[in-house]
Amino acid sequence: MAFFTARSHASPASSKITFFANSFCPFAQRVWIALEIKGIPYQMVEVIPPHLEKENYNPPDLLDVNPEANIPCIRHGNWGVWESGVIMEYLEDLAMGHNLLPLGNPQLRAHCRLWTDHINRKILPSFYSLLLTPPPSPQSQLDGVDDELEAQNRSNTEQHTMLVATLQKNITALVNASHATGPYFLGSEIGYVDVVFAPWIIRLSRVLSYYRNFPRPEIGTRWRQWVDAIESDERVRRTVSDENSYHGVYRGVGEDGWDSLRAAWGNGATGSRKTIVEISYAKKVVAQEGFGLGGDVWGHLGVQEEDAVNGMTSA
Amino acid sequence: MAFFTARSHASPASSKITFFANSFCPFAQRVWIALEIKGIPYQMVEVIPPHLEKENYNPPDLLDVNPEANIPCIRHGNWGVWESGVIMEYLEDLAMGHNLLPLGNPQLRAHCRLWTDHINRKILPSFYSLLLTPPPSPQSQLDGVDDELEAQNRSNTEQHTMLVATLQKNITALVNASHATGPYFLGSEIGYVDVVFAPWIIRLSRVLSYYRNFPRPEIGTRWRQWVDAIESDERVRRTVSDENSYHGVYRGVGEDGWDSLRAAWGNGATGSRKTIVEISYAKKVVAQEGFGLGGDVWGHLGVQEEDAVNGMTSA
Repeated sequence: MAFFTARSHASPASSKITFFANSFCPFAQRVWIALEIKGIPYQMVEVIPPHLEKENYNPPDLLDVNPEANIPCIRHGNWGVWESGVIMEYLEDLAMGHNLLPLGNPQLRAHCRLWTDHINRKILPSFYSLLLTPPPSPQSQLDGVDDELEAQNRSNTEQHTMLVATLQKNITALVNASHATGPYFLGSEIGYVDVVFAPWIIRLSRVLSYYRNFPRPEIGTRWRQWVDAIESDERVRRTVSDENSYHGVYRGVGEDGWDSLRAAWGNGATGSRKTIVEISYAKKVVAQEGFGLGGDVWGHLGVQEEDAVNGMTSA
Repeated sequence: MAFFTARSHASPASSKITFFANSFCPFAQRVWIALEIKGIPYQMVEVIPPHLEKENYNPPDLLDVNPEANIPCIRHGNWGVWESGVIMEYLEDLAMGHNLLPLGNPQLRAHCRLWTDHINRKILPSFYSLLLTPPPSPQSQLDGVDDELEAQNRSNTEQHTMLVATLQKNITALVNASHATGPYFLGSEIGYVDVVFAPWIIRLSRVLSYYRNFPRPEIGTRWRQWVDAIESDERVRRTVSDENSYHGVYRGVGEDGWDSLRAAWGNGATGSRKTIVEISYAKKVVAQEGFGLGGDVWGHLGVQEEDAVNGMTSA
């Protein structure tokens, strides 16, 4: 669906809004979903970040308002703004179409912003910690001859269990803060927190369950109800690519975890196509919250400190 | 001034707003300044975070709305919210008194939020990286007999120079985004970005210039004009303590840098009074942005990973 939605928004729009994005960037997807829900006309321009493509090309219209070419970015007339959270608030302030933050209810609006902060500072770091840490391979579990290897494997298993549990705990806290019957965060209508979280709900099954055996939501739970509502929402679906393409985009990090990043950074910023759009964000966010997420995550970060200076941000 | 302001707000307020804070927490100070500018009646309750005080006491009214006792926290009637950024937006949405984000101007509001993000993600990490890294001692520069010591000292000097330059670069970017003649960020009136940044403007001279020789703003510059406006603003001044008390509060980290933290965490969460209110935040934020801030900052973080699990957040 995403491909067709992007293609149908290739021409300049009456709103004079140009949306600079990458179809596979979850932060861009937040803004994309918001635009679709609000029904604001927009032109979409696909940008490939420099670490993904040797022949990186930044559209002049983007550089004009945003010299560092951050995506997602919204150009509105001769003015522009970036950072997904800032753009989301901007679209609310424009007051065009369906509002995502409840108007005239400061307490509910604060509730949405507080849980948006929880998603950004708790859920995303544990999502990326798990994504960047491959589970112990079943093969190495078989040849339990070497004591050292066995101990290493046991410690990997414990770490994987801990990373899954941390992500589940953080999601559970969010679900407990949501409307009792839902299906969305504030009740029957899709809203701000749903849009902020949707790109990662989409990736939980397509990436984390696929590559990390993250448990799928159980039938009958409030969590399952929420996931189903997001997955079947027409506006969300317009920004979702087919399942196989997520497997492909996340294959490098899915199969090799941190090692895929080392390869990518080691060959220089443009050396590898195995890395993901939001990799620089993922590394930073895990660094910030990684204290409680296990030594290995932390250790892996330490060795890459210098490579990461070359990184670009995409949040 | 802060002491008297807090004392004059000890009783329940007609607005039913209770402000749970610590006078020396810069994040709480953001909210405090906003309340003072807006002229919203409030009751202020001082909370001492557990890592500062063995006999930590959390007011039941705080725990009632916020079981983790995060500060700053606003209780409004029987409802509460925390995180300084979320509270600031809540106070805007309440629309009581002077507004800090320009009403009816989505683009200027987005401009304020974009530069608030710059303060949070660029300026604060470089502020705390510099604060946590003591400069090379002049004494060790004298006995240049030992080659290894000399090399170490040279590398410390280079790091200190780099940390100062990084903070200056990030402040300059903000100043360049501000109103041409000011004195405040958006012009003649104090606004959102000023309030978000003010607690650290206050600490630049009292803490970073005092303990780290951070250059004071030069007379005649736009930057100096901004600092002077903040320093002399009556609403800001009501939340500022006398200069000596900042020297005292930041003495541990000022004199020993990371080592003061190690001591604090090493003795258990309640073992030391030398640490600062926002220490957990400082560590996290440096971790996230620390990639570009020099190896030593990073190395110091690595060794403390486990201690930090016990930390509490105060942002």
